[in-house]
Amino acid sequence: MDNDGVRSSRPRPTIDDVAAVAGVSRGTVSRALNGGHNVSVSAAEAVRRAVAKTGYVANQHARSLRTQRSQSVAFILSEPQERLFEDPNFNVLLHFCARALAKHDITLLLALAGTDDDRKRVGRYLAAGHVDGALLVSTHSGSPLLADLRARGLPLVACGRPLGFERDIAYVAADDRDGARQMVGYLRSIGRRRIGIITGPLDTSGGVDRLAGYRDVLGSSFDGSLVAHGDYTRAAGAAAMAALLAQAPDVDAVFAASDLMAVGALAALRQAGRRVPQDVALGGFDDSGIAGASQPAITTIRHPLERISAEMVRLLLAQIDGEPPSAVILPTELVIRESA
Amino acid sequence: MDNDGVRSSRPRPTIDDVAAVAGVSRGTVSRALNGGHNVSVSAAEAVRRAVAKTGYVANQHARSLRTQRSQSVAFILSEPQERLFEDPNFNVLLHFCARALAKHDITLLLALAGTDDDRKRVGRYLAAGHVDGALLVSTHSGSPLLADLRARGLPLVACGRPLGFERDIAYVAADDRDGARQMVGYLRSIGRRRIGIITGPLDTSGGVDRLAGYRDVLGSSFDGSLVAHGDYTRAAGAAAMAALLAQAPDVDAVFAASDLMAVGALAALRQAGRRVPQDVALGGFDDSGIAGASQPAITTIRHPLERISAEMVRLLLAQIDGEPPSAVILPTELVIRESA
Repeated sequence: MDNDGVRSSRPRPTIDDVAAVAGVSRGTVSRALNGGHNVSVSAAEAVRRAVAKTGYVANQHARSLRTQRSQSVAFILSEPQERLFEDPNFNVLLHFCARALAKHDITLLLALAGTDDDRKRVGRYLAAGHVDGALLVSTHSGSPLLADLRARGLPLVACGRPLGFERDIAYVAADDRDGARQMVGYLRSIGRRRIGIITGPLDTSGGVDRLAGYRDVLGSSFDGSLVAHGDYTRAAGAAAMAALLAQAPDVDAVFAASDLMAVGALAALRQAGRRVPQDVALGGFDDSGIAGASQPAITTIRHPLERISAEMVRLLLAQIDGEPPSAVILPTELVIRESA
Repeated sequence: MDNDGVRSSRPRPTIDDVAAVAGVSRGTVSRALNGGHNVSVSAAEAVRRAVAKTGYVANQHARSLRTQRSQSVAFILSEPQERLFEDPNFNVLLHFCARALAKHDITLLLALAGTDDDRKRVGRYLAAGHVDGALLVSTHSGSPLLADLRARGLPLVACGRPLGFERDIAYVAADDRDGARQMVGYLRSIGRRRIGIITGPLDTSGGVDRLAGYRDVLGSSFDGSLVAHGDYTRAAGAAAMAALLAQAPDVDAVFAASDLMAVGALAALRQAGRRVPQDVALGGFDDSGIAGASQPAITTIRHPLERISAEMVRLLLAQIDGEPPSAVILPTELVIRESA
């Protein structure tokens, strides 16, 4: 080997430097960097800070531990099981993530974390170092999972903006706000003036950002009686539509923040004797299979789930190899069908 | 404590006895009993035999290792992902197993093992000791997973008879053969004489046993031209029904070994201009939601998925606590609706 090339003369920080700065033992640093097995949350956080301060290259350590990797990644769905089967987004996301991971010979394990007890159990499992990283799907703000896993230094990538952790946790999101702007702008362009919204849960970025896009377009004509809330399910869409019809009987268009809610709203409108799109124009979000299959077919916003999945896996593998978190925002697209 | 009771005077075999008989180190025995981490398949098999020969009570060991348990169990579905979402049996089984495990504060991790590469990856993950045991669903005979995991001593419970491993691997099964007998006996009792069958895959116990039950009833009147094969999916049911109509145009009844295949067969019969049940009586198997929702509603065999799930979890926890494998067979029940 040719050994006379120019090399950096600055000594690389070692694991002992990290231990000294963190005020913990070398073994604790090693365990913290290797998934957090038997490390308290506070010690893990101290190690994380010390790594940042010293500029210790986790990559070196990660390489030396390569044989100890589990070659597996968890896909954490913070929803009850029935939503996994009801909402086609999750099926598609799971499929593309598993396919992208398989190319790297990595196993995907699905964990359902729909209740606080589930989230505690799943957090405990992940913290024990049984997986190399986690993909977080449908995570609600305030979930203790995010803070806990972040402090333990487990590589994480969220699907959608992780509210309150945008600077700490890598994520891949569709441009929800712009998608909502496109939809509401389109509803105005076809002459609708009393445009209601059925929002997603306001502790998720999709809920917050789609509402923000709606407000961007309506500006000073925003009217609270045209807002109803849902949780992305069909049943919630039907209930919210019934509420909107009671609150604002002159509603002439509705933007539902998911296709499933749009399908529920369609049923409620039909029951109330309102025609779609003649009496009420209806827009959804997702471009899932049900939007095209519905009668009438639903005008919606497409987000690129295959690209989102591929980017999530790419960001996660980069972090497992020691790179810092980053975020990717992907554009959305209006798909005009029959309902508006 | 009162210490003067009668005690067994025979000394309990120790871990050193097991090591001596197996011809391996004490550490290898310990690792083999603790999930097989860093133990070759042959050493794990030697330890398993030595435990059986010495009568070593794994329970003691399991208790001492309690704090090292992961408190998690894998649910391994040996099918492509689309079947998870198409076949309602899996949704229901997953739901009830997760619920039963949650009562014991145990996390369920779902792994999809639909391809040989998936099975290798999942086997590697399980063998590394990341879970305390595994529930095997829809496992096909010849899968290397069964032999590999069995040799490593990981607690396992199969859903359905694990073909070729009935004595080694615990399982919970519906009485498939008797269910098929009830269905075919019923079709004969309503006057049908040319009864066809659409079987499940013949490398699964449901495929083999439901065909055996059909043959039990038909006896010497069995006719190979009345047999077509499927893989439990709707598409396979339609294709097999078309094949049966070509092979045996005088068919007057069909027993499909799953409700999904029955729904596919119904579509094929309709396309061929045959009325159900007037021209062709149709029976399914599973009593899943689609049987009742179909038009006409499908006569079927009910197997108790909630009890099957609860028994699977019970047998798995017993093995994790050191008990030997056992098998549970649960009865099935004929549900008469409109299709026969």
